[in-house]
Amino acid sequence: MRICTLLTDFGLADYYVGAVKGALLRLAPRSTLVDLTHEIPPGDLRRAGFVLAAALPSFPAATVHLAVVDPGVGSARRIVAGRFREHLLVAPDNGLLSPLLPEARLVEVIRPDLFERGPGETFHGRDRFAPVAAALLRGTEPEELGRPLRDPVHLPVPVPTRSATSLAGTIVHIDRFGNAITDIPTDWLGASRFIARVGTLELRARASHYAELESGEAAVLPGSTGTLELARRDAPLAPTGDLRVGAAVVLEIGEDDREAID
Amino acid sequence: MRICTLLTDFGLADYYVGAVKGALLRLAPRSTLVDLTHEIPPGDLRRAGFVLAAALPSFPAATVHLAVVDPGVGSARRIVAGRFREHLLVAPDNGLLSPLLPEARLVEVIRPDLFERGPGETFHGRDRFAPVAAALLRGTEPEELGRPLRDPVHLPVPVPTRSATSLAGTIVHIDRFGNAITDIPTDWLGASRFIARVGTLELRARASHYAELESGEAAVLPGSTGTLELARRDAPLAPTGDLRVGAAVVLEIGEDDREAID
Amino acid sequence: MRICTLLTDFGLADYYVGAVKGALLRLAPRSTLVDLTHEIPPGDLRRAGFVLAAALPSFPAATVHLAVVDPGVGSARRIVAGRFREHLLVAPDNGLLSPLLPEARLVEVIRPDLFERGPGETFHGRDRFAPVAAALLRGTEPEELGRPLRDPVHLPVPVPTRSATSLAGTIVHIDRFGNAITDIPTDWLGASRFIARVGTLELRARASHYAELESGEAAVLPGSTGTLELARRDAPLAPTGDLRVGAAVVLEIGEDDREAID
Repeated sequence: MRICTLLTDFGLADYYVGAVKGALLRLAPRSTLVDLTHEIPPGDLRRAGFVLAAALPSFPAATVHLAVVDPGVGSARRIVAGRFREHLLVAPDNGLLSPLLPEARLVEVIRPDLFERGPGETFHGRDRFAPVAAALLRGTEPEELGRPLRDPVHLPVPVPTRSATSLAGTIVHIDRFGNAITDIPTDWLGASRFIARVGTLELRARASHYAELESGEAAVLPGSTGTLELARRDAPLAPTGDLRVGAAVVLEIGEDDREAID
Repeated sequence: MRICTLLTDFGLADYYVGAVKGALLRLAPRSTLVDLTHEIPPGDLRRAGFVLAAALPSFPAATVHLAVVDPGVGSARRIVAGRFREHLLVAPDNGLLSPLLPEARLVEVIRPDLFERGPGETFHGRDRFAPVAAALLRGTEPEELGRPLRDPVHLPVPVPTRSATSLAGTIVHIDRFGNAITDIPTDWLGASRFIARVGTLELRARASHYAELESGEAAVLPGSTGTLELARRDAPLAPTGDLRVGAAVVLEIGEDDREAID
Repeated sequence: MRICTLLTDFGLADYYVGAVKGALLRLAPRSTLVDLTHEIPPGDLRRAGFVLAAALPSFPAATVHLAVVDPGVGSARRIVAGRFREHLLVAPDNGLLSPLLPEARLVEVIRPDLFERGPGETFHGRDRFAPVAAALLRGTEPEELGRPLRDPVHLPVPVPTRSATSLAGTIVHIDRFGNAITDIPTDWLGASRFIARVGTLELRARASHYAELESGEAAVLPGSTGTLELARRDAPLAPTGDLRVGAAVVLEIGEDDREAID
């Protein structure tokens, strides 16, 4: 009995998620299906990659992760399967897996014998991706599904940088509580004072958890994926003002002290 | 171990779905429960029927499909169970199952011994439908649950029509991407040029998948349930203007050619 | 194979629910996971308690109920586990379990050996609550998890009252259909006529189910958790005007008759 996670932009109001699950259970009975989310905004590959990479490490080895955010459905875009550490992956080759590259070892799936012929070419989630994931759930090795893929589509991602006086990164995700998650590794920030700036917003407070703050107070915290997070207690910090996914974040280290001396 | 799908208008924020699942797992342990959707707008029997009929074929034989959109809960409306091909069904007799009629073979459930006495008469999903579905999950045959139902409630559905020069149908569903699904069978449309009209909207393009279109371009496509679909790339086509569930769609075949000759 | 229900305020668009489920399945393989809801408004402990208490009785004995609405995550707030009738519980000690007190027998969890060290202190759902629930799923007794908790945090709840001429209570929940659920036990209301008042709204009708009403008509009904409910047919009654969670409800018994005599 293997686990299959599902991540899509199908939403929960349509028949799409049900049909994919039906196909998985028909082709790989007794699998355990777990929704990561189906609320990825249509076509948002970056958000899909973030959620997949953040949830994946919690699952046991040999879990199959099926991710279908696929605006190119029906076109010649490739279908990929493969391994990331002890996990198995199935997704379109469109950049969704970028956060897992280059560590992932992928194959281009060339197994039309597995595909099902559904009506139309607009629902490969049901007709192609589910059968490929079901093969993995039944114990097929990714390497049996096609040939090694050397050039997976890779979305360029901004890379956080550091110097003696500053840390610079990007807001990569805003969660349902309005917390803004950056890509700046938590362990880059020592014990120094700092001023964090995003657009016109300035934060000088630091906390280890939300309840340490006064209601309404905002601060920088070590987030749950190992990067710094900007949050406000009891209220969303984002999206407001300049706090958007993609916005630049700079932490000036020790700047606070210098100002205090002035 | 049998599979039970669930389709309701209960939403996901209340205790209702949880209670139905609890009852199913209490009465039929080891069942595998799969959500089709719980986001049917309250009382929308047509949408419920569409989603059920579209998702059902993907599931393995002997799956139990429990559908509870039941504005008549507590009244004398009947509870039905039965078969559709190799699938099993449980639903209120209120038209929800219309797309599966007349092929479905149904019984009126007359098994008060199965029902549970919950407080009130407003939650038959938990107190009556779940126990009936659990009986099927435990292996009871639908025929053991009551007497054949010859006159299930049937919502009148518009029937698509065709002539040498046109195809006429209805928009039966709008999905989360803003695609408008019609009831016109894909195989009615040959290779001819056409003009598709819905209200004041005209479409002359045809595609097999979304990525074939320019961003923002709209076209007619073969949809994933075997009927034609109207879609726009990278943006919702519906609901806007005249594109609503129930709207008439006409494809004038070859009209395009004649105009070109003029 | 044990069942674990999940109730959180994490929403369905983030990676949080997936990560908690991954941890549960990694630490307690073959568990059956059931979502109660993840749509609790952030930090709404009262709504969380209502949904948990309402859904719980439908589940089989020995089900583990994991509830994480935890604005105090990372602080010194305690983690509790325990029993409620034949069910098992895991939650933060912040009042969420109030509707199950004082019947619940709780322990303060003191088992840092079970906790996982995730990055940061903001996701105890994944790093602490899931491992504790997994221990129960593997058969650990709650009493092995810590010491008896005599003083769990208890949110004060208004208590409904009755006299010969009136019943008084509070609206404790508004569901997706706009029905307003009160805390007044259904069996307090006999066959007498009544006027129900919430703010300026007056209801004199009574029904056993919605279809008994005319479309648009509002009435008092016996609800599905054993308390009275205010509802309107085919349209939401609440939240509108004075119909909000926390609003006072009074039923004047027989007042109607007296007025009729005048």
